[in-house]
Amino acid sequence: MTGNKNFVLKGNICYSEDRNLLRTVEQGYLVCLEGKSEGVWKELPEQFFNLPLTDWGDKMIIPGLTDLHIHAPQFAFRGLNMNLELLDWLNTNTFPEEAKYKELDYAKKAYQIFADTMKKSGTTRACIFATIHRPATELLMDLMEETGLKTMVGKVNMDRNSPDYYCENSAEESVRDTEEWLEHVTKGYANVSPILTPRFIPSCTDELMDRLSRLQKKYQLPVQSHLSENQSEIGWVKELCPASRFYADAYDQFGLFGGKVKTVMAHCVYSSEEEIALMKKRGVFIAHCPQSNTNLSSGVAPVRTYLDQKMNLGLGTDVAGGSGESIFRAMVDAISVSKLRWRLLDESLKPVTLEEAFYMGTLGGGAFFGKVGSFLKGYEFDALILDDSSLPHPQPLSLKERLERFIYLSDDRHIIGKFTEGSRIF
Amino acid sequence: MTGNKNFVLKGNICYSEDRNLLRTVEQGYLVCLEGKSEGVWKELPEQFFNLPLTDWGDKMIIPGLTDLHIHAPQFAFRGLNMNLELLDWLNTNTFPEEAKYKELDYAKKAYQIFADTMKKSGTTRACIFATIHRPATELLMDLMEETGLKTMVGKVNMDRNSPDYYCENSAEESVRDTEEWLEHVTKGYANVSPILTPRFIPSCTDELMDRLSRLQKKYQLPVQSHLSENQSEIGWVKELCPASRFYADAYDQFGLFGGKVKTVMAHCVYSSEEEIALMKKRGVFIAHCPQSNTNLSSGVAPVRTYLDQKMNLGLGTDVAGGSGESIFRAMVDAISVSKLRWRLLDESLKPVTLEEAFYMGTLGGGAFFGKVGSFLKGYEFDALILDDSSLPHPQPLSLKERLERFIYLSDDRHIIGKFTEGSRIF
Repeated sequence: MTGNKNFVLKGNICYSEDRNLLRTVEQGYLVCLEGKSEGVWKELPEQFFNLPLTDWGDKMIIPGLTDLHIHAPQFAFRGLNMNLELLDWLNTNTFPEEAKYKELDYAKKAYQIFADTMKKSGTTRACIFATIHRPATELLMDLMEETGLKTMVGKVNMDRNSPDYYCENSAEESVRDTEEWLEHVTKGYANVSPILTPRFIPSCTDELMDRLSRLQKKYQLPVQSHLSENQSEIGWVKELCPASRFYADAYDQFGLFGGKVKTVMAHCVYSSEEEIALMKKRGVFIAHCPQSNTNLSSGVAPVRTYLDQKMNLGLGTDVAGGSGESIFRAMVDAISVSKLRWRLLDESLKPVTLEEAFYMGTLGGGAFFGKVGSFLKGYEFDALILDDSSLPHPQPLSLKERLERFIYLSDDRHIIGKFTEGSRIF
Repeated sequence: MTGNKNFVLKGNICYSEDRNLLRTVEQGYLVCLEGKSEGVWKELPEQFFNLPLTDWGDKMIIPGLTDLHIHAPQFAFRGLNMNLELLDWLNTNTFPEEAKYKELDYAKKAYQIFADTMKKSGTTRACIFATIHRPATELLMDLMEETGLKTMVGKVNMDRNSPDYYCENSAEESVRDTEEWLEHVTKGYANVSPILTPRFIPSCTDELMDRLSRLQKKYQLPVQSHLSENQSEIGWVKELCPASRFYADAYDQFGLFGGKVKTVMAHCVYSSEEEIALMKKRGVFIAHCPQSNTNLSSGVAPVRTYLDQKMNLGLGTDVAGGSGESIFRAMVDAISVSKLRWRLLDESLKPVTLEEAFYMGTLGGGAFFGKVGSFLKGYEFDALILDDSSLPHPQPLSLKERLERFIYLSDDRHIIGKFTEGSRIF
C-alpha cells in the first residue's frame, strides 16, 4: 500500500474529537486522501467507491500515538536501578550511560535496538533526546528516518554542572557543534527533523542559553527541555538563576519558552500558579510523564488543572525514567497516578478519565506536530490497526469497552498495522 | 520430565533467602529431589552426578510466584470500568458479573480463559475467590486441577447487603451449600484445596460468621477475606459491628483471624496500630494488592511498616481490581506505589526495594502454602525458566540487573518453563 496515499480502511474506528469526546464507529469507513484523513463514515460515500479498500474485519483502527518525551540513549538501561531520585539518578546512571555514545560502535548497537522497538510500538510521532555527541545524534536520525516514524531529534546541549567525561567544554563549543549538526541535518530527511535541546537549566550556562536562542531564531527550531520535575531540582534552579522569578522564567528570559517558538517541556510536576499561567499564555506543550515521575519518586503532576485550563498537553514515556516505550501504558499510568494524587494529596483535583488519557496520547500530544492525532478531516493519516482477538472474554463488549481493555492489557503483539501520513510502516 | 522428580537444572539462578537477601548464582546447579529443592551449587556435588541434568544455558531460573489474592470470576472484566471506588464498583461491575456464574455454560467459558491464562503466567500458587455458586466453584476447581498449579479455591459466602440477584437467602443456606461443597471437594484433587471465603464483613451476618467458624474447625480450613481496603468500607463495618473494636476484630470475634487458623487478608491499606498488632500476634498473612488499591482509588498500604515488623506478607493481583494476573507487575507496582506514598504522604516510610518486592512475590507469599517460594533446601520445587533474549541491550548486565529488568519489562512470552513440586507444567 506504500506509495498509494488514497485508500479506504474498514473496521472498528475510535478517535478523539476533543479532550472529552471519544468517538467510536463500529464497522466504519476511514478515508485517506493524499496522506490525510478525509473523515470517518458509517456508510461509505459514493465518491470513494473507486478507492482501494482494506477490510480489517473485527480489528480496531485508532490514530497513531505521540510520545512527547523520550531519551533514546537511555533506552539501554530501561527497567534498571530505579532506586534513586532525579539528580542522583542522573549522576549515577544516566550520565555514565550517555557518555558511551561518544563511541559510534556502541551508539549503533544501542540506537538500532531503540529504533527497532519504536518501529513496532504504537508510537507514530516522538520528540527524542539524543546525547551531546553530534555523530551519534546524526546516526540516530538516520536510523529513525528508516523506521518511517515522524520524529524530532535533538542533540543535547550541556556546558555546566555535568561530569568532566560528559560535558561540553564551553558554550561556544556546544553551539558550534550544534550549528554543524543543524547544517548536516536540515536537509535530506523526509521523516526526521531537528529540535533544539538544552538539557535543563542546571546544565546550561546563561551564555549557552543566549547563543541557543540565536540559533533558534536563525533556524526556526522547535525546543524541548525539562521543567519543574523534582523539588531539589527546582531549589537548585533558584540558586543558579537568582534573577528568575520561577523555573520557567529562566527559559523565558532567553526567548526559549513558547510564543512563536514551538516548545515542549517535560514533567511540570511542581509548576507554580505563575508558571502555569506563563505556560498557558505561551502555548507551551506539557509532556506528562507519569511513570517516570513515579519511578524517580518525583511526585504526580496536577494534570486535572492542565486539562481544565485547556492547556497544550500530551504524554511522554521519558525512558529510562519510564521503563518502557508504550504510550498505551502511559495512558493507564496517567489515570492511575491521578487517582493516587486525588486520594493522598488533593481531593479537589479529580482523576483523569479514560477519554482524557486517550486524548492526551493521541490528539493532545499530536498537536505538537500539527494536525496530528485524530481522524477528523484534514488530519495527517497516522493510524494503528489493533488486534485484540488473543485477549479473550466470555461476554459481549462494546467497542469503547474493547478499546479500554486494549489500553490496559495489550502489548506490541497486538499492534498489527501502522501508518504515518498515509504510508504503511508495517 | 513429568513423573521424574529427581533432577538437576543448570542456569542463572536467583532466589530470596530472606526479605532483604536476594541470592544470584550464575551458571549454578539447582537440584530437585522428590519434588523438593535440595539446594543450589556453583559446582555440582558428586552425589548428584547420576541425576538427569537439563542445561538451560543463559536462561534464568527463579522460584514460582504466589498470588495471595485473585478473583477468578472477575477475570472477564479485567481492564474495564476503572472509574469507581470499591463499594460502587462492587455494586455496578462486580456483583452483576459474578451473578452470571449461576449458569454453568457461562462459567465454563469464563473460567477456561482464566485457567489458561494462569497456567502460562508466572504464578505457581494462588488463593482464589470463586462466587457463591457451588457448581461453578467445583468447575473452577476442576479446571485449576488440570493446570497443575497449586491453588486454594473458595466458594464465596455472602448473606446480607448484596443485591437480590446475588445473595444467599440465609446463613443456614449459605453454610449448607458450603458444607455440601466441602464434602464434594475435600477428596479427589491433587493440586486444589478448599479455603473458607466469607466475602467481607459487610456481606456476612453474625450468624453466618458463627456458623462458618464451626465449619472451619470441623474441616480445619484456611481462611481468606478482605480487610481495611477503603475508608467508606471501614466506616460501614463500624456501623455494622458496633461491638468490634476495629475491623479485624469483627473477624476475630468469630475465631476467623489467624492463630491456629491459617488466614490471609487482602489489602490492609488503612489498618490501625491495634489492627496491625493483632495481625502480627496472630500471624495473619497480608495480601498486598498495589494495582487494585490504585485502580479503585483506595490508597497505598503501609508496606514498609509490615516489612519492618516482619509480618507475613505477600502480593496479590486482586483481578479485576487489578487489571492483570502478573505477579511480576505486582512487584513493580509495589515499588512504584510505595514511592508515591513516601513522596506524597509520609517520608518516614521508605520505598520498597527490588529485593523486598521479589521476596513478597516469592518467599513472602509462598509461606502461606508452607515451605514455598525459595530454593533453600527443603522447599517445594516450584520454579520458572525465564528467557530474556528478546529484550536486547547493548551493554553487559549482571545477573541481578537482568532479573530487575525482567521484572520491569517481561510478559508471558518470556516465561518458557514452569514447575510445581518438581512436575513440569510446560
